[in-house]
Amino acid sequence: MKLKIAVLAGDGIGPEITQQSIKVLKAIADRFDHEFEFEDAIVGAAAIDLLDNPLPEATLDLCKKSNAVLFGAIGHPKYDNNPDAKVRPEQGLLKLRKELGLFANIRPVTTYAKLIDQSPLRPERIQGADLTIFRELTGGIYFGEKSTSEDGQSATDICTYSVEEIERMAHLAFKAAQQRRKKLTLVDKANVLETSRLWRKTVKKIAEDYQDVALDFLFVDNAAMQMILNPKQFDVILTENMFGDIISDEASVIGGSIGLLASASVGGDNAMFEPIHGSYPQATGKGIANPVASILSAAMLLDHFGLVEEGDVIRKAVATSIKLNVCTEDINKDNPYSTEKVGDFLEGLI
Amino acid sequence: MKLKIAVLAGDGIGPEITQQSIKVLKAIADRFDHEFEFEDAIVGAAAIDLLDNPLPEATLDLCKKSNAVLFGAIGHPKYDNNPDAKVRPEQGLLKLRKELGLFANIRPVTTYAKLIDQSPLRPERIQGADLTIFRELTGGIYFGEKSTSEDGQSATDICTYSVEEIERMAHLAFKAAQQRRKKLTLVDKANVLETSRLWRKTVKKIAEDYQDVALDFLFVDNAAMQMILNPKQFDVILTENMFGDIISDEASVIGGSIGLLASASVGGDNAMFEPIHGSYPQATGKGIANPVASILSAAMLLDHFGLVEEGDVIRKAVATSIKLNVCTEDINKDNPYSTEKVGDFLEGLI
Ligand SMILES: CC(C)[C@H](C(=O)O)[C@@H](O)C(=O)O
Ligand SMILES: CC(C)[C@H](C(=O)O)[C@@H](O)C(=O)O
Repeated sequence: MKLKIAVLAGDGIGPEITQQSIKVLKAIADRFDHEFEFEDAIVGAAAIDLLDNPLPEATLDLCKKSNAVLFGAIGHPKYDNNPDAKVRPEQGLLKLRKELGLFANIRPVTTYAKLIDQSPLRPERIQGADLTIFRELTGGIYFGEKSTSEDGQSATDICTYSVEEIERMAHLAFKAAQQRRKKLTLVDKANVLETSRLWRKTVKKIAEDYQDVALDFLFVDNAAMQMILNPKQFDVILTENMFGDIISDEASVIGGSIGLLASASVGGDNAMFEPIHGSYPQATGKGIANPVASILSAAMLLDHFGLVEEGDVIRKAVATSIKLNVCTEDINKDNPYSTEKVGDFLEGLI
Repeated sequence: MKLKIAVLAGDGIGPEITQQSIKVLKAIADRFDHEFEFEDAIVGAAAIDLLDNPLPEATLDLCKKSNAVLFGAIGHPKYDNNPDAKVRPEQGLLKLRKELGLFANIRPVTTYAKLIDQSPLRPERIQGADLTIFRELTGGIYFGEKSTSEDGQSATDICTYSVEEIERMAHLAFKAAQQRRKKLTLVDKANVLETSRLWRKTVKKIAEDYQDVALDFLFVDNAAMQMILNPKQFDVILTENMFGDIISDEASVIGGSIGLLASASVGGDNAMFEPIHGSYPQATGKGIANPVASILSAAMLLDHFGLVEEGDVIRKAVATSIKLNVCTEDINKDNPYSTEKVGDFLEGLI
């Protein structure tokens, strides 16, 4: 297969981890006789520094004419702590999601036997936990109008959802549930929010088309609790943008390291694959960042184009590296491998 | 001291747990020679069933002319699963908070040595954790305009915050931090939300008046992760309404049972005290609900009126009951005490 992949390594540890994914993808291309063409473009703080624009036109164009985007990370502390900054790195990521129509963000959470003791949760609570979060990605309060009053005395964010936005998400999530344990949990705050009530109503209706899937509802506050008390109860979680952001970062503790969690953003003509961790500025350039989340995102990229065998090869290699403790310091505290060494090892297994 | 206390037992397990708090407060009044006058009023689903109004005028009036409100719980599944319901129990609680001007919800989270093994988190992560969440309670997306388009195809919730709303919360939280470990963490989503940026800016400015308090910032997604990875890092958490709802329910797992977590809502002329757990419909009338969260809320009520010694007596009694395993089934699985028996035991200790 021929694939054109735009590489947006971004900020912080983005470049160093993405480098490892490219290595692994190249090894896959060699072994399975595919042709993957990679092209770099700038985004985020790096792009602001250069062009005062977190998503330059050229970058967006490249993404649009590529089959997929491999994304690193975005964000820089100098913007986080400056509430007055007019341009911020995150705008680049949000705009990219919107422009590419990537309305669904899929975040699988699993556990590795070897890592059970890394998790802050007790082993018996997490052993066998296996869930996937379907987070809506281009709507809600992230994309509603934002404003500050003229006198600077008040600020507003608007959260809107349409039936159509909910329906297309719901179909994806129900279909995924059919391929899994056939359970779907909608996380919302329908006892307070009008948008949540629209979610509940719309998802209930769609459920009629998926009679084999058991649907239930959880308020987001309760869900945040249940995720820790009993994560095994979940199969597919469907939720809106902001709740999905919170719940999926929270769920990352289950696996023992956020450095393992991959994601796929789909819905448009192309798709984007990125680790769920951020730019981790403190680690930048130190060679300590875990490249596995990015590499597993590359595996999701392969799955997306039907190359599931290839994706499995990567996942098996990762499982092996974890079993052998060929891991960065977040996992292997005593004798950590560097970011690059982990990448080399995985490349060698392919 | 003379106190008039409005009792709004509400829905589900509300009445049975609140009954225990009243018992305990009466014992305190006897021992310390106070005069507590209790008066009941209806609220929530119970009030809808009777008067089609989750917060009848008479109930609100009673609250206003009382010094404090002892609140049970609110909510009923028949409304949760009906997105079309025009009147819902939660509106009663929200209106009450607003009408009484209770803009600050204070939720302390601690651990009990005896319960360390109840928590889904590993002991070493939680031992000694001791934090308090200051959740803004009468603003944000909870109280912004809500609407559904005429064709029913889209819904909107508006989130607004003013500098004034943020300032008064921040002062309370900083003052609390000064009495504790002098650390304050603002939880927001300033990389996306305009309201969060206003929070960050305003809180930074207020921090100048509290030089002895160390201020830091966390994005809410990261906070949801940090709460589980390392809850001991937190002292006082300050946050807006919706994030506070999620983060504080999540934090409830630290202590081992949500049935232990009390809260105080303050800011107006009177104050309200309620357990953070909900109406727990499945347990209603079974005598299995844990009354401790409500009883510890009663202790916060006493603190609020300067009766700290009295509050301590209750807290000590609770600590004793936990040490002796005189607990409901959420904690004592082998030989559970009933809701009433736990109340009797605590009353006996006073
Ligand atoms: C960087 C930020 C804007 C982003 C989000 O909130 O969506 C990140 O937290 C994520 O989850 O991908
Ligand atoms: C019942 C509900 C409206 C309420 C809230 O979201 O504020 C509850 O979850 C709480 O935290 O007190």
